[in-house]
Amino acid sequence: MHPRIPELQQRLESALEGWLPEGRILPARLHEAMRYSALDGGKRIRPVLTYATGLALGVPLEQLDGPACAVELIHVYSLVHDDLPAMDDDDLRRGKPTCHKAYDDATAILVGDALQALAFQILAADPAMVPDPAARLRMVGRLAHAAGSRGMVGGQGIDLVSAGRQLDIAELEDMHVHKTGALIRAAVALGALSRPDTAPEVMEGLDRFAKCIGLAFQIQDDILDVEGDTQTLGKTQGSDQARDKATYPALIGLEDSKAQARELVDRALDGIAGLGDEAELLRWIARYIVERIH
Amino acid sequence: MHPRIPELQQRLESALEGWLPEGRILPARLHEAMRYSALDGGKRIRPVLTYATGLALGVPLEQLDGPACAVELIHVYSLVHDDLPAMDDDDLRRGKPTCHKAYDDATAILVGDALQALAFQILAADPAMVPDPAARLRMVGRLAHAAGSRGMVGGQGIDLVSAGRQLDIAELEDMHVHKTGALIRAAVALGALSRPDTAPEVMEGLDRFAKCIGLAFQIQDDILDVEGDTQTLGKTQGSDQARDKATYPALIGLEDSKAQARELVDRALDGIAGLGDEAELLRWIARYIVERIH
Repeated sequence: MHPRIPELQQRLESALEGWLPEGRILPARLHEAMRYSALDGGKRIRPVLTYATGLALGVPLEQLDGPACAVELIHVYSLVHDDLPAMDDDDLRRGKPTCHKAYDDATAILVGDALQALAFQILAADPAMVPDPAARLRMVGRLAHAAGSRGMVGGQGIDLVSAGRQLDIAELEDMHVHKTGALIRAAVALGALSRPDTAPEVMEGLDRFAKCIGLAFQIQDDILDVEGDTQTLGKTQGSDQARDKATYPALIGLEDSKAQARELVDRALDGIAGLGDEAELLRWIARYIVERIH
Repeated sequence: MHPRIPELQQRLESALEGWLPEGRILPARLHEAMRYSALDGGKRIRPVLTYATGLALGVPLEQLDGPACAVELIHVYSLVHDDLPAMDDDDLRRGKPTCHKAYDDATAILVGDALQALAFQILAADPAMVPDPAARLRMVGRLAHAAGSRGMVGGQGIDLVSAGRQLDIAELEDMHVHKTGALIRAAVALGALSRPDTAPEVMEGLDRFAKCIGLAFQIQDDILDVEGDTQTLGKTQGSDQARDKATYPALIGLEDSKAQARELVDRALDGIAGLGDEAELLRWIARYIVERIH
């Protein structure tokens, strides 16, 4: 693990802790459930990408807390809703009961709704973020688009209508581009927008970086589902196969999947080749994505 | 009916129509369901308030379309989620099947999520709105706060934990202040923020106006539930009583409820006494709230 990652994860945790209303504030059950869902969980890949992008551009860390929290809250809310009985119906998330299991379905719906609102509230109100209101408004637009029906929620919509039929490789990629890719791109974009004078070609390179690692991450997930052992993964090995979900290994084979993931990482690194040593963490994350074992 | 209201409702309809992705855009089912839920429905009270507030301050109508849409989309998303089986479990809304009945529960969850994101996207991206990015960022903050766990969703959370026990009058008011009051105040605030040089005391007066009519509206709703006939209301007369829900007439009596609604309208009008003839529509709405029969 890169030594900066636990530091950034800890930083995000403190920032989220500060933004989430305390559990004693009314309505207490809702606020408790929001904290239960958002705190102490996950790899925090998206906000770490926001931090790493900002660091690559020389943005002070305190200006990145707000965008990092906003991105993570959108991700967390989508998990809470995705786990609901009407959606994926999952009982466990990150080793503990899902929000609707620990509380109830209605609370979980409201938790997701409130976490989404909080994400945008932070971008509007965080006093520590980049002061330029135009840059912050662009972040709102970027995050809202990535979260909405042409981005993440659209990807979940594609997933819904695909249930029970085998996707081809183009459809699988289209689903991933929306379902997870859009928010990963927004995570990087919000880091870059924290420095409003970032040159357009640098923004484009960073976006290429984000697009490629987003897809590489999904392919690697599919590879791990075939190759990883259940204990390391934290979910049943082969569970995607068992559910007859379309995966890269199933559609193009294991070796081609690995080759494609590696190629995407090379293209990602190429997108940020013009950045200096400050982009070292970004480069590390790109390589980590295909080398990770869970 | 005030002659400007149908005109503003029609204006909102066209603006929403323009922002909602067409039903043929993928994922088509999600986009169809978003349009099904958001178009052609309701009294549009909140966006009409946004327009009326802007008109009172001399804001051009085209600058108000974005804020009016954003406010209405938050309202519509909350209805879609509120109607879900895990929440109020309603089959009909505005005389047609609710979103989850016409589509399915999973789609309705995603529709609500996407409509919320679209609301913030509009405030960030609408080229016709007030250009001042600082004013628009304040709108984002104001709407996000009103929509979140300290506002509308918080009110739904209070409603959830109150199920099955009788609220007292202070608790009932607290629920309404959050559940419907916060968004009505935001509707007026977004209209006022469309003119960034609005004096603080005018903003305060408008906020008092909004707070009072929000509560008056709820009290009148409770009164109509006792007095109105089923056909005019579009829901079963006495249905709140039958469900043993706390209402103003049940807690303080019918006559005191009517007196309180009238007093709130007087206080609302007092908040905007300093505005000129351009505030005529705002004043008409305040009076309409206690005179309406459905």
